[in-house]
Amino acid sequence: MTLKLYVDRMSQPSRALLIFCKLNGIDFEEVYINLSKRQHLSPEFKEVNPMKQVPAIMDGRFKLFESHAILRYLACAFPGVADHWYPSDLYKRAKVDSVLDWHHSNLRRGAAVYVFSTVLAPAFGLPFNQQAAAEAEKVLLASLAKIESVWLQKKGRFLLGSGQPSIADLSLVCEIMQLEVLDEKDHKRIIGPYKRVLKWIDDTKNAMEPHFGEVHLILFKAKEKFQKQRDAVGSSIPQSSRKLDLHSKM
Amino acid sequence: MTLKLYVDRMSQPSRALLIFCKLNGIDFEEVYINLSKRQHLSPEFKEVNPMKQVPAIMDGRFKLFESHAILRYLACAFPGVADHWYPSDLYKRAKVDSVLDWHHSNLRRGAAVYVFSTVLAPAFGLPFNQQAAAEAEKVLLASLAKIESVWLQKKGRFLLGSGQPSIADLSLVCEIMQLEVLDEKDHKRIIGPYKRVLKWIDDTKNAMEPHFGEVHLILFKAKEKFQKQRDAVGSSIPQSSRKLDLHSKM
Repeated sequence: MTLKLYVDRMSQPSRALLIFCKLNGIDFEEVYINLSKRQHLSPEFKEVNPMKQVPAIMDGRFKLFESHAILRYLACAFPGVADHWYPSDLYKRAKVDSVLDWHHSNLRRGAAVYVFSTVLAPAFGLPFNQQAAAEAEKVLLASLAKIESVWLQKKGRFLLGSGQPSIADLSLVCEIMQLEVLDEKDHKRIIGPYKRVLKWIDDTKNAMEPHFGEVHLILFKAKEKFQKQRDAVGSSIPQSSRKLDLHSKM
Repeated sequence: MTLKLYVDRMSQPSRALLIFCKLNGIDFEEVYINLSKRQHLSPEFKEVNPMKQVPAIMDGRFKLFESHAILRYLACAFPGVADHWYPSDLYKRAKVDSVLDWHHSNLRRGAAVYVFSTVLAPAFGLPFNQQAAAEAEKVLLASLAKIESVWLQKKGRFLLGSGQPSIADLSLVCEIMQLEVLDEKDHKRIIGPYKRVLKWIDDTKNAMEPHFGEVHLILFKAKEKFQKQRDAVGSSIPQSSRKLDLHSKM
């Protein structure tokens, strides 16, 4: 039976799984769980993932959720996957695990809450929570600084000084890509100072083309739509009373 | 060279590492990084963990941080560790990874922020953030409900229906143990309704004695101290203007 990926390409960990499978020649069926239509809350999807979140997979009768656990599983279960993605060497693997675990409460928390507070909540007419946005920005900036100073210090182009990407590069870069939906100035202000991070994102993209670009197409369309809405409203600063008229997902 | 564990027993992931090593007969040196004295911010400790957090380890010249990555590493690096802690079977291991990854943004986020908001912040004279406490409580209760309904449904005494504990049981139970410092009524209100969770905590403790109790001694001393302070102030509800006179750590 084919591997089924339950994903929404607007979700950054969903995109990471899709890119991973495409890059590694893993056959799969993409099952679209439309988040904006709340399909992740359906009784059918609850049977796949009781936590009601994408991504999730079914490999035959084996069900799994949590994108990092899935990436680890795919890297080990499919013999064609090159070792650099999730090294079999104990020490290298432990370091990749360390980055993946760090991600949750740092880059992911900062980026996801910042995007939600400043772009998605206003688009859905929810109040702008200035405190949440400010706290998320702090976490996000601190996380980018740590990536730059701790993991991109060595000679290799990728995290941990590696010459080839691991699932940690893939997961973290997909997270940072979500910042594309921010207002251009805001995006530049946040990520601009981190030159090594910018180069690493480019290197990761280049190492994963054409799949990286193809899977991210939806994000760039959303970026355009958000920008047009912001231009129409005349400001990049979300206000609690302002509702952007966005009928597309996100 | 002996394995060094850089820990503070007041930190729940530090306790998980200590218990794991003691249970599995792994020789180690316990290096106390006193959080209340801000020793985790020292230049010496930054050399061990640039993220300035406990726990961290040095195994010979190999440095590692993030408790889940460390537990995975120890389970694989020390041949005496029984397979049930981190199964070599691909499917079982993936399921353990899924629980560990889920933990970060759910149980950990809920429990840690709730304890900080309602116990630690007031004890340090910081303002009581009611919104943060309320949001953390929601995440915490939802997490306990998910553990009960998703992972403790099967016949085994431990997570995922296992008959023996994994590093996921150890990590999650150590997190929940941190709730011991709450006011008694608050603790009962939060955890009381989750009967399967309570039984699982007992089963996990029993499977890990005498080390579980010994490593948690410091927490029960802190619990007493916090309760005395609350009794002296005459209320279990933290107030922004109230500062508990706690000179011990936490």
